[in-house]
This record gives sequence, structure tokens and C-alpha cells, in this order.
Amino acid sequence: METTSTIIYGKNAIIEALEKEERNFNKILISNNARADVKIEQIKKLAKQKGIVFQFVAKEKLNALEPEGKHQGVIAQVAPIKYIELDDFIQEHKGNLSSVVILDGVEDSHNVGAIIRSCVCAGIKGIILPSRRGVLINSTVEKTSAGATNHISIIKTNSLVNAIQKLKENDYWVIASDHHAEHNHYEIDYTDMNFALIMGAEHAGISKSLLKLADFKVKIPMLTNFNSLNVSNATAIILFEYVSQLCNKS
Amino acid sequence: METTSTIIYGKNAIIEALEKEERNFNKILISNNARADVKIEQIKKLAKQKGIVFQFVAKEKLNALEPEGKHQGVIAQVAPIKYIELDDFIQEHKGNLSSVVILDGVEDSHNVGAIIRSCVCAGIKGIILPSRRGVLINSTVEKTSAGATNHISIIKTNSLVNAIQKLKENDYWVIASDHHAEHNHYEIDYTDMNFALIMGAEHAGISKSLLKLADFKVKIPMLTNFNSLNVSNATAIILFEYVSQLCNKS
Repeated sequence: METTSTIIYGKNAIIEALEKEERNFNKILISNNARADVKIEQIKKLAKQKGIVFQFVAKEKLNALEPEGKHQGVIAQVAPIKYIELDDFIQEHKGNLSSVVILDGVEDSHNVGAIIRSCVCAGIKGIILPSRRGVLINSTVEKTSAGATNHISIIKTNSLVNAIQKLKENDYWVIASDHHAEHNHYEIDYTDMNFALIMGAEHAGISKSLLKLADFKVKIPMLTNFNSLNVSNATAIILFEYVSQLCNKS
Repeated sequence: METTSTIIYGKNAIIEALEKEERNFNKILISNNARADVKIEQIKKLAKQKGIVFQFVAKEKLNALEPEGKHQGVIAQVAPIKYIELDDFIQEHKGNLSSVVILDGVEDSHNVGAIIRSCVCAGIKGIILPSRRGVLINSTVEKTSAGATNHISIIKTNSLVNAIQKLKENDYWVIASDHHAEHNHYEIDYTDMNFALIMGAEHAGISKSLLKLADFKVKIPMLTNFNSLNVSNATAIILFEYVSQLCNKS
């Protein structure tokens, strides 16, 4: 099954993609019934500027393309997202401090979308996803990310083990989020190294084979012994500890 | 429309509710086709211990009760969640440091569920929701919270303004998350006060009438000028800054 999307839906996601100009648009479909609000007007204006066709269609046509009915009256047909090769990513960021988040089989598209959004807000340079487990970039991911998928390098790999080893050879420190860890997430100085942060799947956590490769393991301390955090919230907490450290330094 | 749920679905949410014993179960419906895994066995065992009826039914019956098909083969019919009065909440926590999160019209059930989960992990004592805007506790909230709705006081109010004024009279400091704020979220010491943290709706942010009542406004600094964070991630970041401060103190 090909999970790469060829549609983007939701007003914000489409505006982001139009502004970022990294996606090839085929056309934009707007519901006949769509309320002519500021954002729809902005989409039409941007489309005109960029010479992209937009069409008014019956709502049913949009519902057929996006059956969950979350399209907000507008769907763009686009070329699939471009994944980047890890070698190219490493090369591109050589000489500057770089950071990447690795998702070890995260299964929920809403989580992946929210994580990508947080990564972009935190200035993270790349996301690595395994090709065969968890979700890749699909329409729900793009929608939930509010268009953030167009602002970050997305790398997919057949082997996270190989990817992590390559990162280590290129001077990245590998940090794994693991609730058995000894150290709290705020006890590490993230600001003076290249880092790769591994986050585990919703139920299974991080695979043992990856955990073994980590240079640091960190946990988020809890004030109750209730269950655990949602993976997108856990990722945001660690990434914004890094941002706080950077802001305090500068 | 009554948005209070009378079903809980999803294995973890049901196990939490059974263990916490704060909900009156009517019965538990298990799909004939449900894989007999550890969690289903645990649900059956807990139900037997507590004298709660469980029934095997066709999957279609479950699909009719929870049309999104996310029930994982098990649905519990329960009495609606008990909301707590603000006066009782304040009284209960008098004499100890207390903390509450106020959601000003958050609209997405997944966000509300994830926020409640983070609140419980961060030891927050209560959640305040407006009766007439945003979502109240429904089945999706309970599922997304992984059962956390049973571990925290949930208060609904007709007037957030009145609720905030009452909290202020009772020695709570009011903190509003606002991306125009002057101070960063980590510049406040959360550990030596009762606090009420207000988080705004996904698009509209915090209402002006509430913003005026805030004693502090805080922002989460961003490293790019991309859009903004998802509200559940933003809440988690602020709450776990508070947790980090508490852990560093002790």
C-alpha cells in the first residue's frame, strides 16, 4: 500500500503548502458551499498568483476524496511529499549544529502530525521515519501538522539501526526517551551537540536494538504513577526543554 | 445536546475506569471476534471481581455504539462522569498547594483528552471546562485520555470569568498562555503558589475577558516563526516546566 498522500486538506495546511512553494500542485478543489471566509479567499489569491487551477465542486466530491469529512471545504491535489536521503541531510547540515527526531514506529497519524509541528516550532532540522512500520506522511499527518511537513526535511529509511549508526559516525549524539532511564530529560545539555532524539511507538516504546545504540537515555519525571504521556506531548516536552536551554544561553 | 458520555471504549480506558472504581458500570460489551489478549482477559477478570456483567456481542453492535470503529472490541456502558463544583474543589484543596488547568473553549476532543492525560501525569488537581463552548467529557475524550478522566477533578462552569474570580479570591494565581506575552513560560516560579493555567482554543486563543484577569502572561518561545504549537503540546510544555521546577527543588 502506498501511504504517501497526493491530497492535502484543511485551510491552514493548504495555505502553508502554497506559501512554502515546495509542493507541485495539480489543482485545488473548493466546495460550492464553502463559506467565503478570509482563508478561502487567501487560498484563491495565492493560487491565482502562482497560476494554479482552482475549481468549485460539489461537497460530495470532496467527501469522496477525504471520507472523514475534515477537509473544511477545500482539498488540494498535489505531488507526493519529497523524502530526503539521510546522506544528503547530513551533508546539508555539516558545519552547523543539527538535530533530528527519529520516530520508532509511531502509529497514530495525529501524533506524527503534532510531532512534526512541534519539531518545526523547535527548530529541529529533520524527522526520520521507518519505511515499514508506523505511519509515513499521509493526508491526516499533513493536516494535523498544520502544514509543518513543508518546513522540515523528512527522511524515510529501511533500517533505523543503520540510520542511527550513520548519524553516530557523523558526530550526532543519540538520545532515547525511555521511562526506565536514570536521568531526567532536563539534566542533559542539548545545546552544544548535534543530537538525534528517538521516540518510541505508542504502546511498544523504543525497540531494544535502538535503545542499545543510545548515548543517553532520558525520562520525563511524573508526579503521579498514572500510565504515561501521549507520545506527541512527550516529544514536545523534551524539545522545548532544548529550546529553553538555547534561549537561556543566548 | 447532552455531550456527557455514557460509553467508554478502548481497552486501556476501560481498565483504568474499572481499577479507579469511580464510575458506575452498567455492563461491558465484548466483541465475539475480539482477540483474547492480555488486556481483554484483565477486563474480564476485573469485571468478575467487581460483579459487573460482561456480554459477548456481534462486532456490529459495538460499531453501532461507536461508529468511528476505534473501540478495540470492547465498550463499557457507564454512568456519566461526575462533574465537581468549583466551591467543593477549592474547599478540598485548601491548606495544600493546588493547581488547575482552565480550557477556554478547546474544540478538539483529542486535544482535551491528551491535555487531561498530561494534567494527571503532572499532578494537576483539576480541569475547568466551560459548559457552553468547546467540548465537555465525551467518549473520545475519555479514550484519548487513556482513562485519565477518572484521576482528576473535572469542573464545568457557566462562566469562566466567575470561576477565575473565585479562584483569585481563594489565593490562586492566574497564568494565561498567550503568544504575545512578554515573559517566557520558564521565567515563572510555579512551585510556591496555587495556580490556575488558562489555555486558549485552537484558533481563537484566550478570550480578552479572561486575559484581563491573568496575573501573569507567559509564552513558549519558538525557534522559527512557523505558525504555533498544538494546544495539547503547549499545555504539556508548560506543565512539565512546573514539574521540572518541583523536581529540582526537592
